[in-house]
Amino acid sequence: MDLTTLTHTELSGRLTTLREEYGRLRERGLNLDLTRGKPSAGQLELSRPLLDLPGEAGHTAQDGTDTRNYGGLQGLPELRAAFSEALQVPVDQLVAFGNSSLELMYEALVDAVLFGLPGGSAPWPREGRTAMLCPVPGYDRHFAVCEKLGIDMIPVAMTADGPDMDEVERLAADERVKGIWCVPKYSNPTGAVYTPETVRRLAAMETAAHDFRVFWDNAYAVHHLGEGAPRLADILSLSAGHGHPDRVFVFGSTSKITMAGSGVAFFGSSHANVSWLLGHLSKRTIGPDKVNQLRHARFLPGAEAVRAHMERHAELLRPRFELVHDVLDKRLGDSGVASWTRPRGGYFVSLDVLDGCAARVVELAKEAGIALTPAGATFPYGKDPHDRNIRIAPTYPSLDELGDALEGLALCVELATTERLLAAGRPA
Amino acid sequence: MDLTTLTHTELSGRLTTLREEYGRLRERGLNLDLTRGKPSAGQLELSRPLLDLPGEAGHTAQDGTDTRNYGGLQGLPELRAAFSEALQVPVDQLVAFGNSSLELMYEALVDAVLFGLPGGSAPWPREGRTAMLCPVPGYDRHFAVCEKLGIDMIPVAMTADGPDMDEVERLAADERVKGIWCVPKYSNPTGAVYTPETVRRLAAMETAAHDFRVFWDNAYAVHHLGEGAPRLADILSLSAGHGHPDRVFVFGSTSKITMAGSGVAFFGSSHANVSWLLGHLSKRTIGPDKVNQLRHARFLPGAEAVRAHMERHAELLRPRFELVHDVLDKRLGDSGVASWTRPRGGYFVSLDVLDGCAARVVELAKEAGIALTPAGATFPYGKDPHDRNIRIAPTYPSLDELGDALEGLALCVELATTERLLAAGRPA
Repeated sequence: MDLTTLTHTELSGRLTTLREEYGRLRERGLNLDLTRGKPSAGQLELSRPLLDLPGEAGHTAQDGTDTRNYGGLQGLPELRAAFSEALQVPVDQLVAFGNSSLELMYEALVDAVLFGLPGGSAPWPREGRTAMLCPVPGYDRHFAVCEKLGIDMIPVAMTADGPDMDEVERLAADERVKGIWCVPKYSNPTGAVYTPETVRRLAAMETAAHDFRVFWDNAYAVHHLGEGAPRLADILSLSAGHGHPDRVFVFGSTSKITMAGSGVAFFGSSHANVSWLLGHLSKRTIGPDKVNQLRHARFLPGAEAVRAHMERHAELLRPRFELVHDVLDKRLGDSGVASWTRPRGGYFVSLDVLDGCAARVVELAKEAGIALTPAGATFPYGKDPHDRNIRIAPTYPSLDELGDALEGLALCVELATTERLLAAGRPA
Repeated sequence: MDLTTLTHTELSGRLTTLREEYGRLRERGLNLDLTRGKPSAGQLELSRPLLDLPGEAGHTAQDGTDTRNYGGLQGLPELRAAFSEALQVPVDQLVAFGNSSLELMYEALVDAVLFGLPGGSAPWPREGRTAMLCPVPGYDRHFAVCEKLGIDMIPVAMTADGPDMDEVERLAADERVKGIWCVPKYSNPTGAVYTPETVRRLAAMETAAHDFRVFWDNAYAVHHLGEGAPRLADILSLSAGHGHPDRVFVFGSTSKITMAGSGVAFFGSSHANVSWLLGHLSKRTIGPDKVNQLRHARFLPGAEAVRAHMERHAELLRPRFELVHDVLDKRLGDSGVASWTRPRGGYFVSLDVLDGCAARVVELAKEAGIALTPAGATFPYGKDPHDRNIRIAPTYPSLDELGDALEGLALCVELATTERLLAAGRPA
């Protein structure tokens, strides 16, 4: 039923029905969560062997390093080799460090703020206000780092091909624009994959800032949901080829490959940028947890092992994403008040509802025991100018719970949009 | 033989003998290292069970948390409970985070520089130059953090009782003085233990800066070499009792308890400071590696287990420290040109040689294949004003290697000081 074509009377009748249904939903006392991109317990089970690796006899790395002791700031070579292909970064330009790629992004930005970047002339604040381009909708934790560090955020529209590159190129001509956040594959939350042309333009474009950086958060590099995964263009090589060897900071992690809190994070870039980061890290710490890196290298010894492992994740995730589309198609497919993405990988579905309704949908869902990411979270400063985007994270709940949550969410969308259409005034 | 009482002729003869001996030392082509406080392979073996913990069935914490997933920023409660007694911090005021206490110290200082501290009025740089008091000789990595972050360093003399508190109290009356570095137990490198009166004065003293912090790096809290370990006064309680509840940042780690690169680090402080740190960390990361924390909690489930484990470390370390004293006593005991500390715990012996000779000793040792921490490293900016302090780290080499290295070191001390005495001019 296309709600946008209904008369006032029809809508009023529909509202009464929806409110009754919503009352019954609330009475169920649900306690469901669609907020965060967390792997399910079943996914974590896929990495069960990690829990007793490396084993009592196995603490020595291929190069003879006793992984238990201090040192090895750049991370274990065999683990970097295992993830070099997936992250499209040569082994010697890859750093394996800590359990959180967000931490490496934060570190890179703090170091830019405190000390400045290769190619730059000073710590960022000394040059006045600085800004990052933020494709929207995007990842709230990226935006939170900018907000915390006093870096302005300039939204740029995401398309199915990646960020609006005309706009990106136009804005990059302003020297206070220092970088852009990118989740190039299965973007958070839309699931878009940057096309080769988008990647080429990011690599080739002129920027006013000499220390402009593409923050390439390739969090879902190998997180396909099925066959025929798109191949991302190799931005590091392309940038070097276009005379911008230091342009790109690649980030990745095994958080959604092995164990979310106990994985390994990666940073990849030019030799100059790697030296820059390691120079700063060397004052911060003596080195990362190499035993955990060895554990990972034993479990996933190369690109083929990673691919096979990710296929098992896909088997668990596919039914969840299919359920999202099934429920939303059924309840909202012809409603005229909602549209959503159909990603081929990653962790999210991006749902757009009628302008001005997202916050109300989230509120209604919350009162019915269904937790959603706060409306606006996918925009800088938590402010969605159209109040329409909602991020759905279907990976963590059980299939039954997910079905209940999605049915409830769809109902809340119908209810909120019907309220809105009525308030806006309809033909009698 | 007291070299300082010899005539020119006697010294010249002595020099010839020493140079011959040094020539033979160089011919041996040694490759030994007394530089860093690393546990030996034998010590790492004591924690072998960690390598297959928590085991395939054991990823659930006492509170039911699946440690493999995201979250739990403050760290696993059972691990915090296990180390609460050793670090003298209540469980709910203790944070378990990452694998490096240095990283937590760096984080705390970066956050002070970027955002300011509870009790302070602004980020530190906005108040002009700031400074930390640095008991000397001290830990080079502390000094490196200050240097990197543009925090001035004011040396204060270490005594056998801790820093010269008259001087500390005098300097703390300057509002640009924002804190003091302390390794209160088995200080790096002298091995001194702060007396109860020193701790009381640090807790009670007036400071001009309202956000003055004691950086209490209790790295060797349980690292005794034998019986009768001194008990450190509880600075957190004392500070609160004296009306300065936010004064102290406690740091610790299991790096020298379990595995040097794969341990767990701790931060302890007032509730206000803990909230402050966690607030900043929450933008940096989703949480620490809880599986590693669970691994540690299973291996060392409480204070008694920690004590028993550390006694096994002490059995391995005691012969090394005894060898240091035996060799130095034998070769330098009555030389009049060297004195050294006899710590009851920790990882270092601090050797003072004749003023103006430390750099030459390190150079001679290096040429003979014996690596020592660079002369001056135990002072801010790497500059020992008297050029006399050398840090000896006896834990890592085998006993045989350690004996060779110490014999060589003692010879280099004799040679360098004899050269110096001759150059200074002696009675004929």
